[in-house]
This record gives sequence, structure tokens and C-alpha cells, in this order.
Amino acid sequence: MAKRSETFHPENESDFLFEVVSGEFLETIEQAIEAHDEEKIRERLLVLDPPDLALLLEQLDAPDRRFIIQAIRQGFDYDTLLGLSDHVQSEVVEYLGIDALAKHLAELDSDDAFTLIDELPGDQQSEILTKISASQRASYEKILSYPEESAARLMQQEFVAVPSFWKVGDVLKFIQKSKAMPDEFYEIYVVDPKHHVVGVIPNSFLLRNQGDAPIRDIMKVDFKSIPANVDQEEVAYLFRHYDLISAPVLDESGRVIGMITSDDVVDVIDEEAEKDILQMARVSETNYNAPFYITSSQRIGWLVVTLINALLGAFVIEHYHATIEQKGSLAAFMTIVAAMGGANGMQVIAVTMRAFSTRLIHSSNIWRPILKESLVGLMNALVFSLVLTLIVLFWFKDPSVALILPLALIFNMVWASLGAVLLTFFIEKLGFDPAVSAGPLLTATTDVLGFASFLGLARLIL
Amino acid sequence: MAKRSETFHPENESDFLFEVVSGEFLETIEQAIEAHDEEKIRERLLVLDPPDLALLLEQLDAPDRRFIIQAIRQGFDYDTLLGLSDHVQSEVVEYLGIDALAKHLAELDSDDAFTLIDELPGDQQSEILTKISASQRASYEKILSYPEESAARLMQQEFVAVPSFWKVGDVLKFIQKSKAMPDEFYEIYVVDPKHHVVGVIPNSFLLRNQGDAPIRDIMKVDFKSIPANVDQEEVAYLFRHYDLISAPVLDESGRVIGMITSDDVVDVIDEEAEKDILQMARVSETNYNAPFYITSSQRIGWLVVTLINALLGAFVIEHYHATIEQKGSLAAFMTIVAAMGGANGMQVIAVTMRAFSTRLIHSSNIWRPILKESLVGLMNALVFSLVLTLIVLFWFKDPSVALILPLALIFNMVWASLGAVLLTFFIEKLGFDPAVSAGPLLTATTDVLGFASFLGLARLIL
Repeated sequence: MAKRSETFHPENESDFLFEVVSGEFLETIEQAIEAHDEEKIRERLLVLDPPDLALLLEQLDAPDRRFIIQAIRQGFDYDTLLGLSDHVQSEVVEYLGIDALAKHLAELDSDDAFTLIDELPGDQQSEILTKISASQRASYEKILSYPEESAARLMQQEFVAVPSFWKVGDVLKFIQKSKAMPDEFYEIYVVDPKHHVVGVIPNSFLLRNQGDAPIRDIMKVDFKSIPANVDQEEVAYLFRHYDLISAPVLDESGRVIGMITSDDVVDVIDEEAEKDILQMARVSETNYNAPFYITSSQRIGWLVVTLINALLGAFVIEHYHATIEQKGSLAAFMTIVAAMGGANGMQVIAVTMRAFSTRLIHSSNIWRPILKESLVGLMNALVFSLVLTLIVLFWFKDPSVALILPLALIFNMVWASLGAVLLTFFIEKLGFDPAVSAGPLLTATTDVLGFASFLGLARLIL
Repeated sequence: MAKRSETFHPENESDFLFEVVSGEFLETIEQAIEAHDEEKIRERLLVLDPPDLALLLEQLDAPDRRFIIQAIRQGFDYDTLLGLSDHVQSEVVEYLGIDALAKHLAELDSDDAFTLIDELPGDQQSEILTKISASQRASYEKILSYPEESAARLMQQEFVAVPSFWKVGDVLKFIQKSKAMPDEFYEIYVVDPKHHVVGVIPNSFLLRNQGDAPIRDIMKVDFKSIPANVDQEEVAYLFRHYDLISAPVLDESGRVIGMITSDDVVDVIDEEAEKDILQMARVSETNYNAPFYITSSQRIGWLVVTLINALLGAFVIEHYHATIEQKGSLAAFMTIVAAMGGANGMQVIAVTMRAFSTRLIHSSNIWRPILKESLVGLMNALVFSLVLTLIVLFWFKDPSVALILPLALIFNMVWASLGAVLLTFFIEKLGFDPAVSAGPLLTATTDVLGFASFLGLARLIL
């Protein structure tokens, strides 16, 4: 393939820098498809990097995708499959044919091949497993024995391990002669006869030393290694915290069985961040290419939670309907108390979650955020009470509401601050994810307490 | 330092795997501080990795931090400063003394030294600039001439560049003799006489080839390079999209001036994800160690936005207070219409933002999400209308509300879906960040339209 080096310039016309698959490019391809110009499609698409080709395929309709795959079947880079969403991936595999996939699977890194097989739907998966070699199948099944989202599922099984009595020159000779080298690697592992890692040598250390240097003298002994069954979030934390580029993965007996590199971890961090953001917005999954009725059904779960929360609030309000009928404006002001409590609580949840994920909070120092957030909540509640009292007095000229509103507001905002820390802490301790449940649970309380405190006081005083 | 290799086992007692600074460890240190046991502090803390020492310092009070720094001043690893928040960093620099920092600054990678100087408060910054060498100052000022959060601010200025007529053996000799090598590097750059990069050689390629192989034959010519002035978010996208480990940074004339590695990018991705999550929760900044009155003032901005939104809604409700006084239950049901519209809109904003950031949406195909999301919104609105009609009919036994509520709900939810896509799209096009503004803007409309449509219909029909 005749690729050329690319530098992207900010003077580009496109929406983004680094944009290969621009709107304009997309149009060119769609026109070529309409004109059945296979030659042009091959010319434009076979020079693309796999991630860019994947991005293009995601943006087309199914018939167009079929046409393109037929046109570029020869010379198709199977790495492209890794950039596709599940839905489109299984479709493209169908167009390519299981036989072709089985033949080309060995070109991929083992972690990529594993991910690919794992993501295929059941029928395609069992078909491909009958067509790959016995050793590939064994390696697939070994990985499958580890839990989902574990380090083992992330690692590649290709790595370089050498005995500790070698010299740098021996390592170079070994690397140059061995046929089963990983495509790229950033460090090699020094192992004892039991295949336990005793040291790690970054490639740059090998380059920097003469051939006669014993590797025992140049290897790093303060390295991090990862048990095969830990969760990928822990792996991401380790890479982020210690700025790692690569780390060995060990099985239960401490033998090195694979290697995780930082590009895999970047994907995990991106995935986890996406999950957190979607969960904050109460969406369980995003699949841009799913048909609308599937998307609709995926969204309903969280909307039901919202409905239950809203019904809870509605029942409280309904309980005070006689009070509201005395003075309709109460309905206007009660929503302010609930909204301010909810907003305040969400802020505290986000900050507390962050402190947890950067590991600044433990059980032994949880009193710190409790104290601080309650103070912050009280202070801000006082500020907004003052503002609202003035608004109600001078705008609505309603002294009784000017008395009730600040009291309810202070109560609700301080509760929101305190409740947010406690709720996040307990959900975290129970082993659940506060990004999912803390928000709706807290909002339910700030709505109910906001409405009840304000309307309750109103009934007492009016 | 006598560090030992660590493997972490899931059977650990601590809250997290990979937890060095556990609650228990923290207590031990606090006891040692109380007992003024400097020996124990040195013994426990000088073996820590810099990121772990930083995490510990973040969790102590200022006097304890001062005591610790005095105890471990000899042997203090200046990389530790990089893991500290601004507030704690400047405090620790004060304890260490500017002279000591100036002396040890050269031990850091240039990108880390730059970040450190850049983060110091004004007085410490100008003092350190008078104490470092002229060449360090020049290099600092060169980086400073590039925009904030640009690639140049992220890169390190140490890298390996060699002419294209060399052989692998020449490169090895150069690396082994040169004194100014970066600490670790993952690839070297092949440059022409104008210092333009013509090829990239991963270290593993150098290891794999014999000394007499011309580097021209083994270098990769399809590599990505990064202009020095692009934003770090673009850099993160490039690394994520193409699974890069390292990339050269070019100045305006195309000369290579630095190197970005994937550990820097992991930090950026983490930062950007944190920013997005905090913005979804309407918090502008999180500084766990800031005093409560500073935190309080930092939170107020977004609470003011919430207040304005809530007041807008309150004005609409107030407009219909006579209608509400006729039937107090209306106040209960109107909140459901607003809540469902808001929740639906937030879902669509999150999904649309994600489609933008993975570059699936362009101006030319924006009709796709508009069409799909409107359909999804309509479908879910119909489902929840049915549910609510049944609840109102059989529970509240209120046929007139059972007629009004679904109509208002369908209107508000379909608007929320459509409005969310349009708003995200226009904010994105105008060059702003939808994570910041799309939520509050849309919620303002779903509140106002939710209340107005429901109460307006009620006034017409009742």
C-alpha cells in the first residue's frame, strides 16, 4: 500500500483537524457508489488507515457498505473490523465471509483477534471457531476462562521474555532470529526458570547498552505487574497513576502470560469515561447505528426511573393540594426549592465521585468531605436564601412566602450536600457505581423534601 | 533506592487493588508524625513511587506536610511535585525552597519541568526563572509562545533524530555515545537536512534488524505527525483513533521540535473526561484541598444558572396561579411533564455529543440523528402517555387531567428530542462546548414548555 506521511494543518477546511473522513470525502464516496465506480472506490479507500475506513463504513447505509466491501475485498485490511460497532461489524463479516475472516485472523495481534471473535454474534462466533487452527482456538478458550473486562481480556499473548543470565547481545540475536515476535513491543521481560518476571528492560535501555552488557545489570527491578483477573478499571488506574507504557500480565502462579500496552488502556479509559458521562445523563448505551425502536427501548429503563421519581414528588404535592388551592403561587416557588436542592446535590456527587476515583477518600477520612460539603452547602444556601427573600419581597411582595422559602431552601440544600457525600460513600462501599444510582436516589430525596418542607411550612404558617 | 517489584493480589485487604496509600498506611504515617519519628517516616516514604508520595501528601494537613518534607528533604524525588494539585504543589515548593527546586529541575523531562514552572503561582514562578540556566529559560519561553493546551505544551523537547543515509549500526552507536538522550523513548525520527521528518522507526524495528541494514529500508513512512499549535483534545483524538504510542511534533516550518508519548495523552484524556463529567454535573472545578469558602464561591456560578432556570419556570407557573387555585392537583402533574421532558433531553444531548466526538456526525448527515431522535422521542412519549393516562384514570380518577397530561407530555418529549439534537449541533458549530451549555439551555425550554403546555391546556379545558 502506498501510504504517505501526513501532517495535518490547522488551516484545513474540515470541521475538525485530523479529519480524513470529512463530510466532503463522504459525499465523494457516496457519488462513486451511485455511479458504481469500483475503480474510484478502490483508489480512495485502500489507502485509508483501518480506523478511518471503519469510521467511513459506520456512516453509510447497509447496501452501500455491501457494495464497498465487494469492491475492496482484495486488499481489505482486517484491522478495520476492530474499529466497527458490533452491529456493523457482524454485517461486514457476513459480506467478507467467515472463511476469509478465519484465514486472515492470524494477521491480527492475539488480543485483537480475541476481541473480534468475542464481539461476534453467537452463530458467526461458533462458525469461526470451527475454522481457525487448534492452537488459535486453545488460546481463545484460555482467555475466555478469565472474567469479562479483566486484564487477561485486554492483554496480547505475544511478548518477549528472556533468561536473566543473558547479555544484551544475546537478546538482540534472539529477537532477530525468532519468527514469533510481536508486531511492536516497548519492553522485554526478564524471567527466572519458573517464568516469574524478575526484571523489565525498556527497548531504549537495550539500544543504549553495548552487546556485552549483562541484562541483569541494566534491567529495572521496580516495575509494576498485573494479575490476569483484575478488572480493566484497575488496569487503567495503574497505567494512569504511574504513567506506564506497557506492563506484564501474570497468571495465578505468577507466570507471565501476556502484555498490556498503553494503547489498549487508552481505549479502556475512553470507554469508562463514555460510560460515566452517559450514566450521568441516564443513558445505558449508545449505538448510533441501532434502529430507532431498539434505541427507544434502551432509553425507556432510565425514563421509568425518572417517572417514579416524578410520581413520588407528585404524591407529596398532591398531599398539600388544599394548601396550594389557597395560594396558587406556592406551586411556583416549591419548584425553586426542589431545583436548587437537586442542582446542589449533583455538584457534590460529581466532586465526591472524583475524589473517590483519584483515591483521595477512605473510610478513615470521610469526615473531611462531610464537614466541608455541609459548610459549602450551608454557605451557598444562605447566599441564595438572601437573594430569593429579596426577590419575593420586592417583586412578588409576599412577606409570608419570603419567610417560608429561605427556611425550606436552607434545609433542602444542606441536606443535599450532606446526603450526596453519604450516598456516594455508601454506594461505593457496597460495591456499586455511584455514577449510576447516586443521582436518581438523591434527586428523589431533594424533590420530596423540597416540596414537603416548603408546602408543610406553608400549611403551618398560612 | 531499594525498590522491589510489586505484584498486587486481589486478596488484598484494602479498598482497592493497587492501593499503596491505603487508610491503614495513612494512619501509620500520621502516628509517626505525631510521635515525631522522622526515622520511620524516611523509611516508609523514601521507597514510595513519586505518584504515591504525592497522593499521600494530598491527604495530609499543611503542618503534617511541612513536617514530612523536612524529614525527607534529602532523597526527595522531584517527580513527586508533578502529582500534586496546584495548591499543595506551591506549598511543598515553599517548604523545599526555590533554590533546591532550581537545582533539581534539570532531572525532570522538559515537558514536566515546563508544566511545573507553569503551574506555580506568580511570585514563585518569577523567582525560579531567575535561578535556572539561560538555556532552560530559553526553552521554557519558547514553549510559552505556543497557545495554552496546545501540542507544544504537551511535548518533551528531548527526542532522537537521525539522518536517512545512516545504517542501524550508526544509530546504535549514536544512541550509546550521546549524552543528551531522553530517559525513555519508543521511536526515533529520520530527518532530512531541513529537519523535516521523512520516516519513523519504532525501537523494536531497530532491535529486530542487523547493524548493516540501511534505516531508509526499515523506517515507516506512513506515520502521523502533529503541528505544535493544535489543541490537546485533537492530539488525544489522534492517539485514540490510530492507537499511537508516540508521535513527532512539528513547528510552522515543518521541523520536528518535540515528541509526545501516550502517557502524556492518557493524562489529557483523563482531564478532558473529568471536565466533561463535572460539566454535566454543573461544577466548574474540583479542588479537594481548597478551603470551603473558595469551593463555595466556585460552585455559585452554576447554581445561579439553575436559579435563573427555576425562576423562569416559576414565572410561567405564577402566570397560571388562578388555574392552579381551581385544582391544586395540577401542581403535582405539571412537575411530571417537566421532569420527563428534561430527562429525555439530557439523554439525547449525551448521545449526540458522543456521536460528535467520535466524528460520526457532520453537517451533511445531521438529518439522520434529527429524524431518528424525533422518532425515538415520539415512541417513548407514547409509551409514557399511556402509562400516565392509566395512572391518572384509575388512581386519581381524574378524566380531564387524563386527557391533558398525555398531550402536554408528547409535545414536551418530542420537543426535547428534537431540541437536544439541534442545540448540540448549533453549539458545536459555533465552536462552543455543548457539555457546558446544552443542558441548562434545553432544560430551561423543557421546564417552560412543560409547565406552559400543561397549565395552558388545563385553563382551556377545565
